[in-house]
Amino acid sequence: MKILALESSAVAASVALCEDHTLIAQSFQNSGLTHSQTLLPMAEHLLASCGVPLSQVDLIAVAAGPGSFTGLRIGVATAKGLAWAAQLPCAGCSTLESMAWNLAGFQGEICAAMDARRHQIYHARFRADGESIHRLSPDRAISLQDLIAELKETAAGPQLVVGDGAELCCNALREAGIPAQLAPPNLRMQSAWGVARAALELAKEGKTVPGDQLVPVYHRLSQAERERLEREQAAKTTE
Amino acid sequence: MKILALESSAVAASVALCEDHTLIAQSFQNSGLTHSQTLLPMAEHLLASCGVPLSQVDLIAVAAGPGSFTGLRIGVATAKGLAWAAQLPCAGCSTLESMAWNLAGFQGEICAAMDARRHQIYHARFRADGESIHRLSPDRAISLQDLIAELKETAAGPQLVVGDGAELCCNALREAGIPAQLAPPNLRMQSAWGVARAALELAKEGKTVPGDQLVPVYHRLSQAERERLEREQAAKTTE
Repeated sequence: MKILALESSAVAASVALCEDHTLIAQSFQNSGLTHSQTLLPMAEHLLASCGVPLSQVDLIAVAAGPGSFTGLRIGVATAKGLAWAAQLPCAGCSTLESMAWNLAGFQGEICAAMDARRHQIYHARFRADGESIHRLSPDRAISLQDLIAELKETAAGPQLVVGDGAELCCNALREAGIPAQLAPPNLRMQSAWGVARAALELAKEGKTVPGDQLVPVYHRLSQAERERLEREQAAKTTE
Repeated sequence: MKILALESSAVAASVALCEDHTLIAQSFQNSGLTHSQTLLPMAEHLLASCGVPLSQVDLIAVAAGPGSFTGLRIGVATAKGLAWAAQLPCAGCSTLESMAWNLAGFQGEICAAMDARRHQIYHARFRADGESIHRLSPDRAISLQDLIAELKETAAGPQLVVGDGAELCCNALREAGIPAQLAPPNLRMQSAWGVARAALELAKEGKTVPGDQLVPVYHRLSQAERERLEREQAAKTTE
């Protein structure tokens, strides 16, 4: 199964073409340019340079969230466009699970962490067994305090911390006395290969969707929605 | 230090732009197309898509060997051309050391192996300590029998086997009763990031060279040279 995978959930953007779990080609860019400029040209150039037309791709995979609201929208919109053009199914993958796949070759517990600001991280826990990963928690927005309390009760060993929130999370865990280690620098960031790997699992489980059913998964309200809700509640209180 | 790294020592080709050890962008391709078609366009597209002109690069790094004779020549010739155009220094990196850098985040001994045909592998041993790698042997062409004999005497733990000869080598070690494990699939192949990482060490040691001094390191005679030598020796014997 040929999978074209897109990752634009944070600052870096990447695109990968895989045949099942084998990487055929990948482009990764963390140059500070906006995903709306880089992502689609990267995908087009990748396919062209491999001599693979979009019609030969079997599945469009995208990191659907959590992550930067704008980044997720760009990724999901690009996936929808490509899927619509070639009538392909889509896999909306957990960004956190996708980055955990980078570390499947290790043994032990994985903390996947993205900086969610407002004193929270987007976070999920996994266990790697040297070949695969197994989920230990749902994706969630959680405060570092709540995560530390959870890990003090349930962690079964040192935490290998991955993601663009890894340093923040790793430092906080260590300060709280929880053994933690940063993932190696070449595996710490989101990668489209991980998204393709997560998508392959979704495809095996029959969990692909048509492009029009693909939606970003934010895990929390956007700033605009949150502020409107606060205004509405304030208005109700003063009524 | 901005490093532009090229890897074309085997079937896959890759190009990376790094700022010291941080990856800014990477393109990887294992599509079966020839490096003479893909490598230079990949490098040009990578720099263009990052908005970095060649004049802002500080060092051209290349996997100089061992590897496919044609692949190495394409890589080294491309590096020379880029270095000449922008008057940049070059780092000719060991292909085996570069691929071992992929696994620096692990703990233990690394076997870097490329299929050298003629019952040999190109091979070097390293130790990873979770952050860096340390060389345990020189790069060499060695038979699996000789490697097995060496490891039975000197291996200090299970071997983590990386490279395009990893499966061949790993199977042979296991059959000989030496504990060995394949590197994870996303880290098993040569990558330009590893070349940039190896180049950074060479730069720290003052071991960069001008482009005209950059040479491929084959570690054995080419087929044409070997056959000429055999003809000459046969002629001498019959004189």
